[in-house]
Amino acid sequence: MKDFTVTTGSICGSQKTYRSIPSYADIQVPFRKVALSTSDEEAVLLYDTSGAYTDHNAHISLENGLPSIREEWLKKRDFQSIPAAYPHQHSSVAYCPASYHIRQGKKGKHVTQLQYAQAGIVTEEMAYAAWRENLGHTQQEDDDLPLRGERVGPALPRIITPEFVREEIAAGRAILPANINHPELEPMVIGRNFLVKVNANIGNSAVTAGAAEEVEKMVWATRWGADTIMDLSTGKHIQNIRSWMLRNSPVPVGTVPIYEVLEKVGNDPLALNWEIFRDTLIEQAEQGVDYFTIHAGLRLKHIPLTSQRVTGIVSRGGSILARWCLDGHRENFLYEHFEDICAICQRYDVALSLGDGLRPGSIADANDAAQFAELETLGELTHKAWAAGCQVMIEGPGHVPMNLIRENVTKQEALCGEAPFYTLGPLTTDIAPGYDHITSGIGAAMIGWFGTAMLCYVTPKEHLGLPDRDDVKTGVITYKIAAHAADLAKGHPSAHYRDDALSRARFSFRWEDQFNLSLDPDTARAFHDETMPKEAHKTAHFCSMCGPKFCSMKISHDIREETQRLEGLEQKSEEFRQQGGGLYVETI
Amino acid sequence: MKDFTVTTGSICGSQKTYRSIPSYADIQVPFRKVALSTSDEEAVLLYDTSGAYTDHNAHISLENGLPSIREEWLKKRDFQSIPAAYPHQHSSVAYCPASYHIRQGKKGKHVTQLQYAQAGIVTEEMAYAAWRENLGHTQQEDDDLPLRGERVGPALPRIITPEFVREEIAAGRAILPANINHPELEPMVIGRNFLVKVNANIGNSAVTAGAAEEVEKMVWATRWGADTIMDLSTGKHIQNIRSWMLRNSPVPVGTVPIYEVLEKVGNDPLALNWEIFRDTLIEQAEQGVDYFTIHAGLRLKHIPLTSQRVTGIVSRGGSILARWCLDGHRENFLYEHFEDICAICQRYDVALSLGDGLRPGSIADANDAAQFAELETLGELTHKAWAAGCQVMIEGPGHVPMNLIRENVTKQEALCGEAPFYTLGPLTTDIAPGYDHITSGIGAAMIGWFGTAMLCYVTPKEHLGLPDRDDVKTGVITYKIAAHAADLAKGHPSAHYRDDALSRARFSFRWEDQFNLSLDPDTARAFHDETMPKEAHKTAHFCSMCGPKFCSMKISHDIREETQRLEGLEQKSEEFRQQGGGLYVETI
Repeated sequence: MKDFTVTTGSICGSQKTYRSIPSYADIQVPFRKVALSTSDEEAVLLYDTSGAYTDHNAHISLENGLPSIREEWLKKRDFQSIPAAYPHQHSSVAYCPASYHIRQGKKGKHVTQLQYAQAGIVTEEMAYAAWRENLGHTQQEDDDLPLRGERVGPALPRIITPEFVREEIAAGRAILPANINHPELEPMVIGRNFLVKVNANIGNSAVTAGAAEEVEKMVWATRWGADTIMDLSTGKHIQNIRSWMLRNSPVPVGTVPIYEVLEKVGNDPLALNWEIFRDTLIEQAEQGVDYFTIHAGLRLKHIPLTSQRVTGIVSRGGSILARWCLDGHRENFLYEHFEDICAICQRYDVALSLGDGLRPGSIADANDAAQFAELETLGELTHKAWAAGCQVMIEGPGHVPMNLIRENVTKQEALCGEAPFYTLGPLTTDIAPGYDHITSGIGAAMIGWFGTAMLCYVTPKEHLGLPDRDDVKTGVITYKIAAHAADLAKGHPSAHYRDDALSRARFSFRWEDQFNLSLDPDTARAFHDETMPKEAHKTAHFCSMCGPKFCSMKISHDIREETQRLEGLEQKSEEFRQQGGGLYVETI
Repeated sequence: MKDFTVTTGSICGSQKTYRSIPSYADIQVPFRKVALSTSDEEAVLLYDTSGAYTDHNAHISLENGLPSIREEWLKKRDFQSIPAAYPHQHSSVAYCPASYHIRQGKKGKHVTQLQYAQAGIVTEEMAYAAWRENLGHTQQEDDDLPLRGERVGPALPRIITPEFVREEIAAGRAILPANINHPELEPMVIGRNFLVKVNANIGNSAVTAGAAEEVEKMVWATRWGADTIMDLSTGKHIQNIRSWMLRNSPVPVGTVPIYEVLEKVGNDPLALNWEIFRDTLIEQAEQGVDYFTIHAGLRLKHIPLTSQRVTGIVSRGGSILARWCLDGHRENFLYEHFEDICAICQRYDVALSLGDGLRPGSIADANDAAQFAELETLGELTHKAWAAGCQVMIEGPGHVPMNLIRENVTKQEALCGEAPFYTLGPLTTDIAPGYDHITSGIGAAMIGWFGTAMLCYVTPKEHLGLPDRDDVKTGVITYKIAAHAADLAKGHPSAHYRDDALSRARFSFRWEDQFNLSLDPDTARAFHDETMPKEAHKTAHFCSMCGPKFCSMKISHDIREETQRLEGLEQKSEEFRQQGGGLYVETI
């Protein structure tokens, strides 16, 4: 892994900064700080998912892994250290040599964030996650004004406190995915009353391959704002590639364990069995995987409901399990072993992400009987997971026309007790392969507003091929747009600061500030420079769209000055009138 | 203009076809026909805005212009031929030499489509536009099933008849922009009960220049589906460039006349006056411009309402007129001369597009007092336009967070008597310059579903620079996605055919059909070929995403076969039971 390099350095126009938080002096919450070119405004702090890679003071060594920021917190808890349950895979890809302790919860003791929350204990992870949500604001400006946005559900607090995070986790409305074997993790919270999060899928498939490029994709995706990543590798060396990802990932890592299991049984769905699945879960839990997608909701009786569909079963995990169930006409072994799965997840605090194996793969199949039958089972499993002390979220579709999106959220909330919803898009039309980041970004923004807690990105390559580096960036940025549009619409207290700061910069022709506050400063700057390349134009009070004589913003400034002048006159006239003058004629 | 070439030839995987319609044997409605690789399904007809340029039988000569398909219809109506009111501009860009008659309506006679509609007359234009909407279907399949989608408002008919188009135009709920001096136009209808339309803005500015590239942009934009184009040129040679556009445009062309007027008065807003404006309207009406954006709703009294805004006045037209009003504290001359404007538009059937000069330019300014005060005035003007026999639509924002989008439509419908709404996006966040086609595509899809009739595209260069050819295509495709997602959601009877056909192709691994049915076949194919370049893979029953052994679609086919086999067994068992057998055990 000598030639194994990843992207490092500040994101254009910003610097990594850390803020300590009230009552937790040892917790340092990372932000990206954008300094502005005007003395009238303070620097803007942005949510930062990029880890140490964008900290120019950090020494990055993929062999050593990231610093274990949770180590001191975890040490204090009641865990046992254990040897690895399974030997490392023999493979041409080496296992990541970074050392770490494998921990396991003790029987009968609190392990998961849910258990701590329900016991009334605020963990360091909860405090950390809370203050990330506030974007450095310790109190909101205009405390007397109503929050902007329109909540679908109860009102949000003005400041996200650690106690609020605890309450939401205790109620099952939020999860804080943080395997006790992933000490490098920078904690974050997923729930409908927090900022909408974005997941980026990466991973090699049997057709393409390569470990280095997948780890770089993880760093690259989090650089642009991915809040979690899912490793969907289906080829060889899965376990060893994942060791590099986990030791070097600042964000929660999710997997779909059935993919690795299928690889182990020679890619034959009919050879699947509980024992290999169980072993794989333990192996991945010991590595530090933070959440598992488990397709336990797809039951034998649901399968015939798909027979009239236009696109059948499009979930990979779902189709594999359906194949297994139909052979021998047997119940899904993940459904039957769900308590066993929960018992494993509880001991490492792996969150469950209940997969929607029957999600619709086309507009025609949206919100059909198969989809909602499975959702009902997911509701049943949600309550089982909670009973076992496990954190749980619910996966959702898929392909859904706009008019059917809200029903997905309404049903999910009702059936799954408001557990966080985690949706793939949804795509709002089938007719634009090559642009499915956009067809799905529309649905993602809407469903985020309606209450979805995390959005799984879709890249331009969806339905066509594997995403490359550019596709990953496009997918992440598109989903950051959707998530942020949702945060604005639902009235998250921290959402509007960035829009307002950027718009003020735009109106004041502070071009550099406008670029630096944007989701992708490099692209914004490059687009501007295509038609206005000269350095002087960066401070010009116009752009190429209208040219110097025609700029609405420029005229608008003249108008503002003129209005203020007139208002001054008006005020003088008013004074004159009040003093008995009679010559004033009302003109406005 | 010797090196003046435009893009011609079929769009990949489709052929131009024409269909005659019941009772109008001489009307040939153009479609794009996508033949499929399976004998199980018929070819799919797609709405086609691309004109003769994609007809391989057509001879294209920009000097001669497009064939005047409306000539015979117009001849029969009661118009007078007139000489050009104004001489051609002296300019280094020649005037388009294509010959055409300048026509004008006679006083007291029907001229506009609105007047014909209100008189109970179905014009050829109405019939043509109606049958485009049906996409070649003369009756909808599954007539007994309810239409898909969820109307915001009254139900749509299953087939769009010429009479339905007439009724909608007569009620003011739709317009059919078709200047009697634009005989080359392929008629289309804009209204909330029809397919959502997309406008593409093109035009040079003072900073860049070039006639050829602007005409090619028009051809290029309509190739990808732009239903109308607006020429927003602000530089030199405006009139002469427009002559080339009009004689060669198969779609309605809109302008913002104040731009040309400002050019005429040396770019000094304070030098504007009604006489030059009037002359410019007549000049453009005689050239054949199909609709005018007129910022008559921005009144002097509204301007102070913008003084606390984050981004002031961002509409170019709006800011110019506001500047004029403030100077000397006078009322907008377009408001004061609105009846005169209507009188001109009526004689040529130029539709009015009432501009929203006070639209919000940032999330913070959305739905504010200034915006809605102007909208109220636009409502007043709508009724004046109708009284004068003019077709009219209403422009809308802008920058609006998702939760405030619906209020825009509700207010517009109430204040403007359901006249078609024509919105720019709206952008749902300010933080993504470089990606504003996406921030606005989200808002466009939603507002389209809520009832907006036409969406003005936004390109990736919005706020940063002038769009080039690629940006125009990206903008158009993004807005076709938004419009189509809206059509699906509102339940337009023709909307779902394409999604269903493409999804069936996807499920059957008919890759070529999937590409050809997509909005951008070239990009879909190229993306697929990046990871699966071999020709054989075009027929492969898998793709690079999952590889051959892992394909959910492939497994899904196995499942379908297995389910059918089991259903067969079940049926046999049922027969057995009914015959008295007692060994059957229920398993599903």
